[in-house]
Amino acid sequence: MANLSSLMDSEVLRAYATYSTIVLLKMMLMSIATAYFRLTKKVFANPEDARVHAKGGDTKKLLKTDEDVERVRRCHLNDIENIVPFVAIGLIYALTNPNLASALLHFRIFTGSRILHTIAYLLPLPQPSRGLTWVVGYLVTISMAVGILRGVLYL
Amino acid sequence: MANLSSLMDSEVLRAYATYSTIVLLKMMLMSIATAYFRLTKKVFANPEDARVHAKGGDTKKLLKTDEDVERVRRCHLNDIENIVPFVAIGLIYALTNPNLASALLHFRIFTGSRILHTIAYLLPLPQPSRGLTWVVGYLVTISMAVGILRGVLYL
Amino acid sequence: MANLSSLMDSEVLRAYATYSTIVLLKMMLMSIATAYFRLTKKVFANPEDARVHAKGGDTKKLLKTDEDVERVRRCHLNDIENIVPFVAIGLIYALTNPNLASALLHFRIFTGSRILHTIAYLLPLPQPSRGLTWVVGYLVTISMAVGILRGVLYL
Repeated sequence: MANLSSLMDSEVLRAYATYSTIVLLKMMLMSIATAYFRLTKKVFANPEDARVHAKGGDTKKLLKTDEDVERVRRCHLNDIENIVPFVAIGLIYALTNPNLASALLHFRIFTGSRILHTIAYLLPLPQPSRGLTWVVGYLVTISMAVGILRGVLYL
Repeated sequence: MANLSSLMDSEVLRAYATYSTIVLLKMMLMSIATAYFRLTKKVFANPEDARVHAKGGDTKKLLKTDEDVERVRRCHLNDIENIVPFVAIGLIYALTNPNLASALLHFRIFTGSRILHTIAYLLPLPQPSRGLTWVVGYLVTISMAVGILRGVLYL
Repeated sequence: MANLSSLMDSEVLRAYATYSTIVLLKMMLMSIATAYFRLTKKVFANPEDARVHAKGGDTKKLLKTDEDVERVRRCHLNDIENIVPFVAIGLIYALTNPNLASALLHFRIFTGSRILHTIAYLLPLPQPSRGLTWVVGYLVTISMAVGILRGVLYL
């Protein structure tokens, strides 16, 4: 028990906890964005969802794809592909006792890059805005992964 | 070494381990469900898969989408979008030394909501059954995230 | 602080850190593979991406799906469905203080199976190559999950 309560005495782990929670909440926001566009544009994937909004009209008409909905979904999937590895690799990295300043730099740049990525994806901004924000976040995660493998490699 | 073996002395961490494992196994079951529908309905995404089941017939005929398969896949993706954040945020939450009763309440409600969500999605039950089960699980994860940010914020 | 730096004294946790980082890097490589095929085959999902490569020509022509791109994306999604549960369940398993030899066996077989799975998916090799590599990785994760539930069950 003592170990558990003292784990969060580590400033690196507290920083990890803070930034991971922020990017995961940002990722979860994409579900709300998808629901918002589905409801306002009346575009659904499931017949039982369309039925609620068809109001006696033709249910099948509402079962289509919409470019705004698909854009949010692509952004959500990109978050999953990038934020989930960050959260997993970031935890292992935080447990290897890195320098606090270095850890904060990694966590802050990643979080900033993913917030900008979402803005660039949803507005959308012309390329290479989105591409650059993606690359920055990607390289941050790679940098932490290299740090882990150099520090604790055990094959 | 001592730290590691004693980590699981914490009841909160044992509860986290139990419920996270259960929801992750539930999520993994969706792969089996997808495979089951693909094989019984003979609907494939890859030519090399279709070839095995075409038995000398036309391979291309089996390369199509099927509403039952797509439904399971949407349910699987929804699991990824919701269970993965729960597992990540839940671990950080468990490490912030929360009250055991409060932690159990979060873990149990989330696990129950996701099992009901799958049932509502696959049968399917008329809306808002699935919507409600989704919202409950979502709010549980948000509640843990708020707890983390209030407890260990380090920006 | 002391706890944190000593966590990685555990050989099981170091092995977990190593193999999890390797499979997550492998998963992240799929983003590069997708980008490579999109750029070389000029196939895009977003109009702002197509615009850069249309060179004054028709942007809409580049907004299509391509079988090579879709194959990489299916492989990437399969990684998410399987590697993410491994990383999460593997961490909990590593924290339950398992036998080192047993843990290494789980981590090595999983990592090998997923590398072979990617090769079988992208070449592609005829079935059941890909199916078998998938099953092996799946069973490794199930085996660790059973170990967790038998060891620390707390409902």
